[in-house]
Amino acid sequence: MSYRAPVAELAFTLRHVAGLEAVLAARQSDLTPEDARAVLEEAGRLAGSVLAPLNRVGDRHGTPLNDGAVTTPPGWREAYRTFAEGGWNGLSAPESHGGQGLPLLLNAACTEIWNGANLAFSLCPLLTAGGIEALEKHGSEELKAAYLDKLVSGEWTATMNLTEPQAGSDLALLRTRAEPNGDGSYRITGAKIYITYGEHDLTDNIVHLVLARLKDAPAGTRGISLFLVPKVLPDGSHNDLRCSGIEHKLGIHASPTCSMAFGDRGGATGWLIGEENRGLACMFTMMNNARLNVGLQGVAVAEAATQRALAYAQDRRQGKAPGAEAGGGASPIIEHSDVQRMLLTMKATTAAARGICYLTAAALDAARGPEGQAALDRASLLTPVAKAFSTDIANEATSLGVQVHGGMGFVEEAGAAQYMRDARILAIYEGTNGIQALDLVGRKLPLNGGATVRAQIAAMREVAESVLKDGHPGFGHTAARLRAAIESLDRATSFALRALGSNRPEEALAGATPYLRLFGLAQGGACLAKAALAASAALRAGETDPAHAGRIALARFFAENLATAAGGLEQTVLDGGGFVQDAKLALAG
Amino acid sequence: MSYRAPVAELAFTLRHVAGLEAVLAARQSDLTPEDARAVLEEAGRLAGSVLAPLNRVGDRHGTPLNDGAVTTPPGWREAYRTFAEGGWNGLSAPESHGGQGLPLLLNAACTEIWNGANLAFSLCPLLTAGGIEALEKHGSEELKAAYLDKLVSGEWTATMNLTEPQAGSDLALLRTRAEPNGDGSYRITGAKIYITYGEHDLTDNIVHLVLARLKDAPAGTRGISLFLVPKVLPDGSHNDLRCSGIEHKLGIHASPTCSMAFGDRGGATGWLIGEENRGLACMFTMMNNARLNVGLQGVAVAEAATQRALAYAQDRRQGKAPGAEAGGGASPIIEHSDVQRMLLTMKATTAAARGICYLTAAALDAARGPEGQAALDRASLLTPVAKAFSTDIANEATSLGVQVHGGMGFVEEAGAAQYMRDARILAIYEGTNGIQALDLVGRKLPLNGGATVRAQIAAMREVAESVLKDGHPGFGHTAARLRAAIESLDRATSFALRALGSNRPEEALAGATPYLRLFGLAQGGACLAKAALAASAALRAGETDPAHAGRIALARFFAENLATAAGGLEQTVLDGGGFVQDAKLALAG
Repeated sequence: MSYRAPVAELAFTLRHVAGLEAVLAARQSDLTPEDARAVLEEAGRLAGSVLAPLNRVGDRHGTPLNDGAVTTPPGWREAYRTFAEGGWNGLSAPESHGGQGLPLLLNAACTEIWNGANLAFSLCPLLTAGGIEALEKHGSEELKAAYLDKLVSGEWTATMNLTEPQAGSDLALLRTRAEPNGDGSYRITGAKIYITYGEHDLTDNIVHLVLARLKDAPAGTRGISLFLVPKVLPDGSHNDLRCSGIEHKLGIHASPTCSMAFGDRGGATGWLIGEENRGLACMFTMMNNARLNVGLQGVAVAEAATQRALAYAQDRRQGKAPGAEAGGGASPIIEHSDVQRMLLTMKATTAAARGICYLTAAALDAARGPEGQAALDRASLLTPVAKAFSTDIANEATSLGVQVHGGMGFVEEAGAAQYMRDARILAIYEGTNGIQALDLVGRKLPLNGGATVRAQIAAMREVAESVLKDGHPGFGHTAARLRAAIESLDRATSFALRALGSNRPEEALAGATPYLRLFGLAQGGACLAKAALAASAALRAGETDPAHAGRIALARFFAENLATAAGGLEQTVLDGGGFVQDAKLALAG
Repeated sequence: MSYRAPVAELAFTLRHVAGLEAVLAARQSDLTPEDARAVLEEAGRLAGSVLAPLNRVGDRHGTPLNDGAVTTPPGWREAYRTFAEGGWNGLSAPESHGGQGLPLLLNAACTEIWNGANLAFSLCPLLTAGGIEALEKHGSEELKAAYLDKLVSGEWTATMNLTEPQAGSDLALLRTRAEPNGDGSYRITGAKIYITYGEHDLTDNIVHLVLARLKDAPAGTRGISLFLVPKVLPDGSHNDLRCSGIEHKLGIHASPTCSMAFGDRGGATGWLIGEENRGLACMFTMMNNARLNVGLQGVAVAEAATQRALAYAQDRRQGKAPGAEAGGGASPIIEHSDVQRMLLTMKATTAAARGICYLTAAALDAARGPEGQAALDRASLLTPVAKAFSTDIANEATSLGVQVHGGMGFVEEAGAAQYMRDARILAIYEGTNGIQALDLVGRKLPLNGGATVRAQIAAMREVAESVLKDGHPGFGHTAARLRAAIESLDRATSFALRALGSNRPEEALAGATPYLRLFGLAQGGACLAKAALAASAALRAGETDPAHAGRIALARFFAENLATAAGGLEQTVLDGGGFVQDAKLALAG
């Protein structure tokens, strides 16, 4: 059982949940939804035939480091070449630099496809995409001319060098130093850790984006600058940087996580991106995209785990399900309601997270069109939810995938465990999910005095109202349960905004994690209901695709079995972190 | 940071949650609570100094198989000898066979300690304990004379051979055959998988308990018999059995999971335990114990993960916590409320699961005393909750342990990931947690027409009432939230009993998993509140141990932040599996 891109479902979500038509119209693009679907089909073919077969190979092989050189697993180089030559690397990069200039929304679906097939592989182009974005927005014309085309084409790859041993979530603690050479270049000295694809053999050059501190820079995050530090310098010589170690990790074994040493021999040569001491601002401009991409990785690995668990449950026979014929032998375990509950939980949370991620991508696209800032604010609001909710459910779904397999799930050969191991990093990198929750409550709820979040809740409410009006019997209690979740979110939002506005921010922030989960359940339920409403309309219009009834059933399952957690989450948020005062006492015992 | 047995907490739980004094009194034991505590201290020393240091070694080394021989990791043999020579193997085994005859309740605390230090190691004596129980209750006098003393002393170990490739959860599908030799022995032929410690180098002999089918036995589970099949026969010759393979697993790498081949050369020699075709009944008599032990493994690994995460969070500095001095540098991450929430969730769920497991052990002890059947019924009711809730929270807590470590958690060197990998089997083996939930709802709720579960709920209610009366301000909303959870459980129980009694069992069974979680939250919350009430009384009596205030704060955290999920779970149970009808449509898409 290998990953297959769920193209029909992705296309349906693009159109009926995220509003692909509106995105295309706002860009005055001549791309049609049919073109978009053709892109997905093509991506799915490549993912299924080239990337997915390498997923287990990569897990077993890892990326050994010898004398500073990192070897990727067998087949990796060829796959990377195929990927780059297909133009996939620059799908949403500007056409002026050789990209395809497609909407981020369509790129989001493709990102899901690559990562569903092979998370460890797909991290490499994901990092390059971040480098392209930073360079495009903040790089000088010279730097762009020298590096951008080759990054877009995939001839070279990019990395992000942020973390240092003492500076993980807290970039204010960075120590890597930069000194001007006087010729416009800088000497970079320092040690970085957790650098994804910091060294590899896929391309001839690697473009490192490095956060460092100038000599007289202010302390804290306002004294950090961003530099471009290539592995190979323009004159062809090797820069003064090397991979000094590779982490032995729980998952994504085929993605080399490097410790990088800059300046062993006096300093690596780099060039400033953007202004001095404004490095963090440069990073922030690509943060929405990067965090969304990690959310999409969560959706992707959850989808892959779901496909594998479904296939196993259809095949494996144990026990007799209620209603099975007497004497007919054991039933496929998919007939047992507790197995169905696990599979439906996997599928429904995956679809809900997908909806949230695609909505976020559509908002980023819309921000470039006439809607402008309002759409950007919406994207900013949704981004921490897209990142954290999707990666939380990725942990849950991949663990359920192991459970569906029973004892076989614990055996690495089955492949279910790899998804769980690979997924585990997603809730951690690109800002831990705890930091996402603090960002959502502390920075995003107050946007426009709360108007951004209020508008988003109003849009969810409309969906719930439409379900009530639709009347398809398959919806069961969907409208009531979804409405209850949205009202819980509304009350929790009011509580948080009040606390933030009354100089009692800790009361809101202590409940940030349950608040984010509550937001994800309400928004995710609304996304599923939106898809189900479109399905219901299609059925009324005479379409006979059985997937439509499935969409209604999935929305119902989510509302009746998962969104029901909303009330408890609201209560916890409203208790206002009463635990904080005595937390240390409780933890000391 | 290595595991340290939390002796004070275990002793407090034994006394104030599980009622150690009552257990000792009912056995007319001259053991005092102080003696019990001394046993825990001693166990803690051994666990900390001998077993815990081997935990990482075992994970890295695994158990290679060569020519049928399995090599345990370096240090394993010496540790096993120390463990056995200390008399720990037979702690609750009968004194008539060289055991210590201590209460199961005390043994439960020791089981937690061994597994907290080293899960992979401790599985070996756990399996042996199961073998001792089966043999003691059902073995002939000859078999007991030949095997029981050596199993109790730990000179030999025991295994359980149940699973076959086609028969995992469904033992009716077993195919291993047994034929009488005419001399009272049988020839066993067949293949078994997932046999824990099926082969190893710790002892000279291994006593396999094997489920097999006699020639003319009825089909299904009523035609299964249990046999004792030793690796080395009484005449010193090697029996016709071998380890044919070792699984490459996600976790517990140092516990050899063997495929066993019986009868390559005509048949392995074995002896019947109990009556022909009654093998499953023999297995069932030890099921309460075995499932409780797996629950304790969950508590143990969650405790170990919590200790490690706490130590890391006290040490690691990132960001500035609210209220931290200006200019004082970064705060330890334990000062941040979202990290506190993770740590408190780990600690509170661990303590709640511990309470449930110890209550179950106390009920098993009480079943041997004057209370008899009523206590056994209570143990039967609690057992699936002890197994499934504890192992579910073990998955959650060990994953949170990774999260608290940030990027370091994903690196194997930190040790957090190993706990997560090791824990993952617990929800699967000894009956998957889905099967535990079905057992709870389908078989245990109807015990005595529902009187057993009603009595248990009444006992929880009393605890909530006592919290209301206690009035310690640290309780916050504990009484109200706990009471709400208990009433949710009560209503969900009534719903399930009605459905079961009205020939609509599927309506109850479809909600079995959320029902079990609901039960665990209410019962776990009651256990924590019971401990907190004892702490509050101790404070009133003038005790100054700061751990008492911590117990109250922990009970509060659980009630306000975790038990709040009860209402949503109730609603899902009451929706009665409305999803089942359309489940296949939703899964087909």
